[in-house]
Amino acid sequence: MASSVHELIALQSQLMAWRQEGLTIGFVPTMGGLHDGHCSLMRQATQRCDRLVVSIFVNPAQFAEGEDLEAYPRDAESDLALATSAGADLVWFPKLKDIYPDGWCSTIVPSGVGLGLETEHRPHFFTGVATVVARLFALIRPQIAVFGEKDYQQLLVVRQLNKDLCFGVQVLAGRLVRDRDGLALSSRNVYLSPEARADGQAVPRALAAVCAAYAQGERSVAALEAAGVAKLQAVGLELEYCRIVSAHNLSAPPDSLSGDADEWRLVTAARCHGIRLIDNCALDDPPWR
Amino acid sequence: MASSVHELIALQSQLMAWRQEGLTIGFVPTMGGLHDGHCSLMRQATQRCDRLVVSIFVNPAQFAEGEDLEAYPRDAESDLALATSAGADLVWFPKLKDIYPDGWCSTIVPSGVGLGLETEHRPHFFTGVATVVARLFALIRPQIAVFGEKDYQQLLVVRQLNKDLCFGVQVLAGRLVRDRDGLALSSRNVYLSPEARADGQAVPRALAAVCAAYAQGERSVAALEAAGVAKLQAVGLELEYCRIVSAHNLSAPPDSLSGDADEWRLVTAARCHGIRLIDNCALDDPPWR
Repeated sequence: MASSVHELIALQSQLMAWRQEGLTIGFVPTMGGLHDGHCSLMRQATQRCDRLVVSIFVNPAQFAEGEDLEAYPRDAESDLALATSAGADLVWFPKLKDIYPDGWCSTIVPSGVGLGLETEHRPHFFTGVATVVARLFALIRPQIAVFGEKDYQQLLVVRQLNKDLCFGVQVLAGRLVRDRDGLALSSRNVYLSPEARADGQAVPRALAAVCAAYAQGERSVAALEAAGVAKLQAVGLELEYCRIVSAHNLSAPPDSLSGDADEWRLVTAARCHGIRLIDNCALDDPPWR
Repeated sequence: MASSVHELIALQSQLMAWRQEGLTIGFVPTMGGLHDGHCSLMRQATQRCDRLVVSIFVNPAQFAEGEDLEAYPRDAESDLALATSAGADLVWFPKLKDIYPDGWCSTIVPSGVGLGLETEHRPHFFTGVATVVARLFALIRPQIAVFGEKDYQQLLVVRQLNKDLCFGVQVLAGRLVRDRDGLALSSRNVYLSPEARADGQAVPRALAAVCAAYAQGERSVAALEAAGVAKLQAVGLELEYCRIVSAHNLSAPPDSLSGDADEWRLVTAARCHGIRLIDNCALDDPPWR
């Protein structure tokens, strides 16, 4: 079993010991509710570091009033077992006061890639993410960290934050993992009723439809996006966005796409029976082949 | 003459060379318009490091619309000579794109000690300060840095930021330097007409009056503050604040002070013929003795 650490001082003494041995440190931050998507990030990290630290911290700053902070899935024992099985050497359960100690004052409000898309629907979200990731990077100082492509915009925000504050972390993108029915793995999928789950499959179907149209030569952004929207609305999902954006900086594409398929990313968010689902893919990388 | 460096890459290569020689690096960030207050910070820094870096960067993020960004005193040659005379080894003139490169996204919005006082009158100010200082600390990674007590709240914000993001910089407080007439040195004093300058002396007189009342045994915060306000208003200065606060975290004191004099700080800001003057002192450390 991985070491389970609750005290910041114990974490830092272990990190120092590893560093003195010349071991490289990898890091996967999570909010718990671990599933195979997280485990995939951890397995990927273990390929690139000697010791893997996983944090499990449900960060209040990422939740707005009325969101699911209280209900967010928490099961420390199961999380510890899963992280261990995926190669974690140390699982850190920070206390609130470790992340936001008395007097703490440094909220980070991302602009640039942190504007638009998710922020249109969760204005507080990347402020919470950037603030906690900066603090975690500063406390742990890993050589590498893995963030899932499931939260594609978040990945870009974290990469930019890492550059801006010169943390020197190699931020790796972890591939999105899907369930057998195509739904992207998410801790919040446990909220879905069987009916909602069935309707939710419209999300990966929307991605597939856009990729299929692209494969058939469609290059009009409006037509491609419309193919995705049609699938989402066919089962009555409440569309938040379904857009093609630059894979590098989320900027809007020209009316007609050019260049390689991986220059662009289809990103979407929709509410399904009240549960928010997000998903994304490169235009040549559909959920199913 | 200190090396004058305009390219980030040249700065970083010099820093790396010094580090490889085992030399400790000190840092004094400035916006130029150097005066003996800045030089005092530099001389203090040289006592605690092997090599001193001074930055001269008029940070647009610290100025609101309608403030004096364009008019702010700029004289690179004189600044370089003054910094050299005060012991600087390298004077860095960052370009805007070094501090805020394309894609840069990490604005830091201080809470805690960054709320109240200055923020009531310059709401953008500490956001600009924290953002640029975080970036400068991240790029330079000095062992020590000196910030003047003239900007007392700023000193506390920088110290907390340094803790929050674990920069590991030893942030030293530089003593406030006054002109012969008692006015705290400030780059903006050049804006003062002779008449304004004469009226501005009411600011140190206000500090002196509060310290005198304290020395005579007055402990009522209301009475102490009133002694300061009277001096400011006697010459018609436009009061922004004149308050006694905790020297540690700027919190409000009890109605009647207890403990040592250095537990408390008198902080004040007033407009004098349209020019904003700020000043502060410990209750047992008046501008004149």
